[in-house]
Amino acid sequence: MTERGMLIILSGPSGCGKGTMLKEVVKRTACEVSVSATTRDPREGEIDGVHYHFFTREDFEKRIVGNEMLEYAQYCNNYYGTLKESVESIRSQGKHAVLEIEVQGALKIMEEHPDAVTIFTLPPTLAELRRRLEKRGTETQEVIEQRIARAIEEIPFAERYQYIVWNDKLEDAVDDFCAIVQAEANRTKYSKERIGAFTKSC
Amino acid sequence: MTERGMLIILSGPSGCGKGTMLKEVVKRTACEVSVSATTRDPREGEIDGVHYHFFTREDFEKRIVGNEMLEYAQYCNNYYGTLKESVESIRSQGKHAVLEIEVQGALKIMEEHPDAVTIFTLPPTLAELRRRLEKRGTETQEVIEQRIARAIEEIPFAERYQYIVWNDKLEDAVDDFCAIVQAEANRTKYSKERIGAFTKSC
Repeated sequence: MTERGMLIILSGPSGCGKGTMLKEVVKRTACEVSVSATTRDPREGEIDGVHYHFFTREDFEKRIVGNEMLEYAQYCNNYYGTLKESVESIRSQGKHAVLEIEVQGALKIMEEHPDAVTIFTLPPTLAELRRRLEKRGTETQEVIEQRIARAIEEIPFAERYQYIVWNDKLEDAVDDFCAIVQAEANRTKYSKERIGAFTKSC
Repeated sequence: MTERGMLIILSGPSGCGKGTMLKEVVKRTACEVSVSATTRDPREGEIDGVHYHFFTREDFEKRIVGNEMLEYAQYCNNYYGTLKESVESIRSQGKHAVLEIEVQGALKIMEEHPDAVTIFTLPPTLAELRRRLEKRGTETQEVIEQRIARAIEEIPFAERYQYIVWNDKLEDAVDDFCAIVQAEANRTKYSKERIGAFTKSC
């Protein structure tokens, strides 16, 4: 019932399966994941415009000044953010733009876009998060400990999100995410025009 | 994620398929339809406690005075209403109690139970509503006109509900209803305890 797509925010600890979840969600719904922008160097195999929009520091800062960013933040001396245009080009096609972003950026967007659908995903336990991070085998033990520490810091903010999706079994988590998208598209606000037309047909 | 079941209200014009929809919904979700109470006489084939709780006028009024009704109203010199106990016995089992009720009763419950999930269902057009009422063949043309007139009166209240389910194809409407139930069960408020436990496990 939505002509213009919705804005959907997904946050959750690194390693809890957000990327895998979204890969399935886009197959089953009219969702598209918005590509983030960053100033960090591309890793092997990363394609500009697919994994990230890779910008120079100067270019990124120009876009901040030009009010082209929906949100942005600095980590480890690099900028990360969301281009308004990336989101807009998805939504204007009637697709739902999904932003996989950190808590700070999410809180900023919630303030400016109270219509956004906000989802926080969590693994069943912290022990399971550690297991998943170790299984990936892409990070050192030190980085894993940092990610766990960061997850613990972020958890109190989970209550600021509208929905919690517990990612115990991937399939169930995907199913919950898809149900949220479908339910939100049935919100009364998106039917106002159609109710008007219905009434006029009386 | 809900230990205690939710309270779900469904309203919509007579003849738009609420009963058929709910028959499918209870098969696919943890929903149970709450049995209403009435003082009207049972029709052929109607079973006390299944289709309605049939009460005498005196008994119904005793329950009103005793504060046993969640909502009630009078139509055509008969009482219709919802027993608090009917709803409570469903919710305390962890099932979601679905109330198929009229707009006036629904608005009263919305005030007292802001946590209730509220859904208004509509046929695609008024012409289709008329067609469905005529197809049922159970009402005279006069009654059909009354129902259409009543539908027109009720439509402005649709915007007071959280969700609109357009019942064009039954299967899609059932699917939307089930998605709403699933999404609502993922509301952050139902995960607060689990988030607390997650944090304590740190």
